[in-house]
Amino acid sequence: MSTEAVRASQEQTLANAKVRLAGIAGGFVHHEQPSGDFGLIGLAVMGQNLILNGADHGFTVVAFNRTVSKVDHFLANEAKGKSIVGASSIQDLCAKLKRPRRVMLLVKAGSAVDDFIEALLPFLEQGDIIIDGGNSHFPDSNRRTQYLAGKGIRFVGAGVSGGEEGARTGPSIMPGGNEEAWPYIKDIFQNIAAKSDGEACCEWVGDEGSGHFVKMVHNGIEYGDMQLICEAYDILKRGLGLSNKEIGDVFTEWNKGVLDSFLIEITRDIMYYNDPADGKPLLDKILDSAGQKGTGKWTAINALDLGMPVTLIGEAVFARCLSAQKAERGRASEVLEGPQIPPYTGDKKAFIDDLEQALYASKIISYAQGFMLLREAAKEYKWKLAMPEIALMWRGGCIIRSVFLKDITKAFRSNPALENLLFDDFFNKAIHNAQGGWRRSIIRGIELGIATPCFSTALAFYDGYRSKVLPANLLQAQRDYFGAHTFRVLPEYASESLKEGDNIHINWTGRGGNVSASTYLA
Amino acid sequence: MSTEAVRASQEQTLANAKVRLAGIAGGFVHHEQPSGDFGLIGLAVMGQNLILNGADHGFTVVAFNRTVSKVDHFLANEAKGKSIVGASSIQDLCAKLKRPRRVMLLVKAGSAVDDFIEALLPFLEQGDIIIDGGNSHFPDSNRRTQYLAGKGIRFVGAGVSGGEEGARTGPSIMPGGNEEAWPYIKDIFQNIAAKSDGEACCEWVGDEGSGHFVKMVHNGIEYGDMQLICEAYDILKRGLGLSNKEIGDVFTEWNKGVLDSFLIEITRDIMYYNDPADGKPLLDKILDSAGQKGTGKWTAINALDLGMPVTLIGEAVFARCLSAQKAERGRASEVLEGPQIPPYTGDKKAFIDDLEQALYASKIISYAQGFMLLREAAKEYKWKLAMPEIALMWRGGCIIRSVFLKDITKAFRSNPALENLLFDDFFNKAIHNAQGGWRRSIIRGIELGIATPCFSTALAFYDGYRSKVLPANLLQAQRDYFGAHTFRVLPEYASESLKEGDNIHINWTGRGGNVSASTYLA
Repeated sequence: MSTEAVRASQEQTLANAKVRLAGIAGGFVHHEQPSGDFGLIGLAVMGQNLILNGADHGFTVVAFNRTVSKVDHFLANEAKGKSIVGASSIQDLCAKLKRPRRVMLLVKAGSAVDDFIEALLPFLEQGDIIIDGGNSHFPDSNRRTQYLAGKGIRFVGAGVSGGEEGARTGPSIMPGGNEEAWPYIKDIFQNIAAKSDGEACCEWVGDEGSGHFVKMVHNGIEYGDMQLICEAYDILKRGLGLSNKEIGDVFTEWNKGVLDSFLIEITRDIMYYNDPADGKPLLDKILDSAGQKGTGKWTAINALDLGMPVTLIGEAVFARCLSAQKAERGRASEVLEGPQIPPYTGDKKAFIDDLEQALYASKIISYAQGFMLLREAAKEYKWKLAMPEIALMWRGGCIIRSVFLKDITKAFRSNPALENLLFDDFFNKAIHNAQGGWRRSIIRGIELGIATPCFSTALAFYDGYRSKVLPANLLQAQRDYFGAHTFRVLPEYASESLKEGDNIHINWTGRGGNVSASTYLA
Repeated sequence: MSTEAVRASQEQTLANAKVRLAGIAGGFVHHEQPSGDFGLIGLAVMGQNLILNGADHGFTVVAFNRTVSKVDHFLANEAKGKSIVGASSIQDLCAKLKRPRRVMLLVKAGSAVDDFIEALLPFLEQGDIIIDGGNSHFPDSNRRTQYLAGKGIRFVGAGVSGGEEGARTGPSIMPGGNEEAWPYIKDIFQNIAAKSDGEACCEWVGDEGSGHFVKMVHNGIEYGDMQLICEAYDILKRGLGLSNKEIGDVFTEWNKGVLDSFLIEITRDIMYYNDPADGKPLLDKILDSAGQKGTGKWTAINALDLGMPVTLIGEAVFARCLSAQKAERGRASEVLEGPQIPPYTGDKKAFIDDLEQALYASKIISYAQGFMLLREAAKEYKWKLAMPEIALMWRGGCIIRSVFLKDITKAFRSNPALENLLFDDFFNKAIHNAQGGWRRSIIRGIELGIATPCFSTALAFYDGYRSKVLPANLLQAQRDYFGAHTFRVLPEYASESLKEGDNIHINWTGRGGNVSASTYLA
C-alpha cells in the first residue's frame, strides 16, 4: 500500500467515525446513515448507463438531475430493483453520500459544470471529491483543479469514452486532476471500467486537465479513424461500385485482421442494416452532413498551438466542415467537372487488399501523430504522461478500441521512451508492408476523382517525415528575401561568412537594406 | 464629399484653429508649431521604411523608438535630408504632431502595443488617432477599438504587407477599426500604398479588427503560396533532378504566365543566387527548418473555429511544423523506407507543364478557401467585408501580389455576391484546364515518395467540394450507433418513420437504449 493509499484509508476511517458520531452524539438527527458510494448528476444516456454500471458492480449510486422528474422516471424504470438511490436536490444528494463524498458530473461541458460546482460547494466538506466526467476542455479542468484545491475540494477531470454501450458495460476512463482523490475513486473507476486482457482500462493520467487532454486526443483520433473508414467506404462504393451488403462483407473480413476494432465492427453492422419500413439500406438515406464543434476541433487547434504536425486529425475535422456545406456542394457538383468513373474491370481482391493497407498505414500515421502531440503536451504543460498506460486505457471500452492498440501498448511497454511509433519494429515493418497498397489506393482515388483527404495527408506526412531534407530551405530564403527574417545554415555548409546557429540576413537584391527584422514577424 | 469627409474637414479646421489659438492666446508657449503629419513608433525595418516612404510622398513624419539612440542613428543616416523629425520621448512625439494626431505603431504584436497605447494616452486629445500597423491578432484589435473609443481616441488596426521593400516603395495597407479615423488617414495611406493599374492598394476594410483579420487571411494565403512553391521546387529538384539554375529558368518561364507574381519572381532570384564565398547556390546551404508561430497558425485556428475547410493553409502550417522537426526527421530518414527515385527519362517539358498546372490549380483552391473564410467571418462577426476591395488591396504591394489577384478582383467586381471563386467563369475554366496536369503531378509525387501535402489537400478539397454526396452519412450513422447522437434523413428519402429535419435515433443493435444524447456530444 502506498503512503497515499494509507493516508487515504486513515482519512476514510476518520470520516466514517465522524458520521457515526454525528448520528449518535450530535444534535442533528440523520434520517438514515449515508449509504451512497458515489453520486452522479446528469441523467442523459451516458449518466444513466454509468449509474447502472456502477450498481452492477455493487456500488450504491445516488442519482440526481436538474429536471427532477427524470430521476423519478429513471428510478421507476431502468433503475428499479438496483442499488440506486434518487436525490431530490443537490443538498439531498450530498446528504446521502459517504465521506469523503464522491460526486460525478455528467452534464454538458461548459458553464453547466461550473454552475453545478457552485451549487455543490455549500454542501461539501474538506476533502470531498468532484469528478467531471463530461467532455470538458482541458484548460477548464486546469482551472477547476486549482480553484477547488483552494477550497479544500479535490477535483478530478475524467475523460470517459465508450458511448452509451461502453458506459453501460465498461467504458474507458481517463482521470486526471488532484491526485489526492485517486485512492478514493480508484476502486470504483477500475471496477466499472472496461477490461482488456484482465487489465482495467483506467489509470491515473496526471495533474490538472491531463485526463481531459488525453480524452481530447482520443476523440481527435476517433475523428481520424472515422474519416479514414468513410474514405474506404467511398472508394468501395463509388470506385468499385460495391453494394452496401458487399461493403459489409469487406468490413467483416477486415475485422478479422489488423484492422479488428470497434469502429470497423459497427461499420459492418451499419452496412447490413436495412430500414424496416422498406427493407432498403438505411445508410443510403442518411444526410451526409456532419457536425464538428467538438473535441476533434480542439485537438487540431492544440496541435497548431503546440506546433505539432497532427495533419490527419486536422483533415478529418475539415472533412466534416466540408460535409456540412451540403447545399453549396450541390451547386458545385453541377459546375465543377472531374474524371468519369468507369466500371472497374481489374482484380477486385487486389483493389480491396490495397485499400485495407491504405487504411492500416494511414491509421498508423494518425496514432503516431497523436502520440507526438501527447509527448509535446507533456513537455509544454509539465505533465508526466505515461504512454503505455494511455495506450492501455484506449485498448478497451472506448470508441477507438482495437487490436491495434494492443500492439501500441506493447510497443510503448517494451520501450517507454519510444520517440515515435514508426521507430518501433512492429510498426516499422507494418508500414513498409502496407506502403505499396497505400500509394496505389490514393492514386486510384485521384484518377477516379474520389477525395481521400486523410489517406493523402497521412502519406504526405510519411514522405515528409522520412525526408532528411525538406524544401523549407526555400521558404526560409523567401522570408529573408522579402522580410529580412533571417535564416540559418546547414551545419555541413557552415563557413566563415555563414556561421552555424547564427541568424543570417542576406541582401538578396542589392536593393533592400541591411536591417534584419528583430521585432517584426510576418 | 461624403458627410463624414465634410465633418472630418470641419474638425480639422477647428483643430488647426485651436492649435493657433494655443500658440497666440494660451499661457503655454510652443517652441514651434507642430509640423508632423504623422508619427511612427518602432524603427525596425518595416518602421524605418514606412517613414522613408511617407517622406517621399511629401509628408512630415515624426520618428520615435523605445531605444532612443536608434532614432538618432536613423536621422543621421537613412533619414538625413528628408522631411523626417526625431522625437526624444512619447511626449515630444505627441507635441510635434498636427491635430488630430495620427500615431502609427509598428512594434511587436502583443503587450508592446498595449504598453505604447497606455504611454500615449496622457499626451493625446479627444479625436486623436492611434494606428497599429503591426501583425496584431484581430481579437486584440476588436478590444482596442472599443477600449479607445471609450476614451474618445480613434483606433485603427491596419494590416501592412509588402515586407521591407514593400514598406519602402508602397505596401498593401488594410485598415479597419474606428471608421471616424478614415477621412484623416485616407490621404496619407493611399499615397504611401502600392498602386495597381492606378488604384491604391488600400481601402477601408470595416469595423473593429477586420483590417487585421484580412491581413491575417492574407498571411495564411501567403503561407499556402510559399508551401506550394516549395512543393514544386522539391519535385523539380528531387523528381526531375534539375539544378538550381535550371529550376530558376523554370520559374522565369512561369513568371511570364498565369503564375506571374512576386513570390515566383523572388524564387527565381533565389535559385540564381550564389554564395559570393564559393560561387555555389546559397539555397542549398540554408537550414530546412521553418517557424510557424504566427498569422498562418491564427488563420488555421480561425478556420477551425468558424468551421470552414481551409485545408490548404492548415497543411501549409503543419508543413512548417514538420520542417521544424529537423533532428527527428534525420533519424526517421534512416529507418523509414520509400520508393527509389529513378533518373527521369520521360518528356521533361510535359512534366514541368503539368507541375505548373498543379501549382496554379492548387493556388485557385487556396484562394477560394480563403474567400470562403472571409465570407464566413463577415457573417459571424457582422462585418461588411467587400470582396472586390480585398482582392484589390492584395493585388499590389503585398507579398502575394500577382496577376492572379487581378483576375480575382475582376471576378468579384463582375459579381460581388459570387458564392465561390470556382463558380466564376474564368476560374471555372482555369481549373478544368489545369486538372489533368494537377492530378498527374500529385501521382508522380506519390510514386516517387516526394511529399506534396498542399497539392494533395487542394485536390482532395476540389473532389470533395464537387461531390453532391460525401461519405459523411456513414459518419453520422456511426455517431448514432455508438453515442445516440442522431442523424437526419436526405430529403429525397424522407418518409413516415424518417421525417425530414428530425434528429433521428435508431437502436442499431437492439441492445442499446432509446435515450438520445441531447446533452452529451462526443
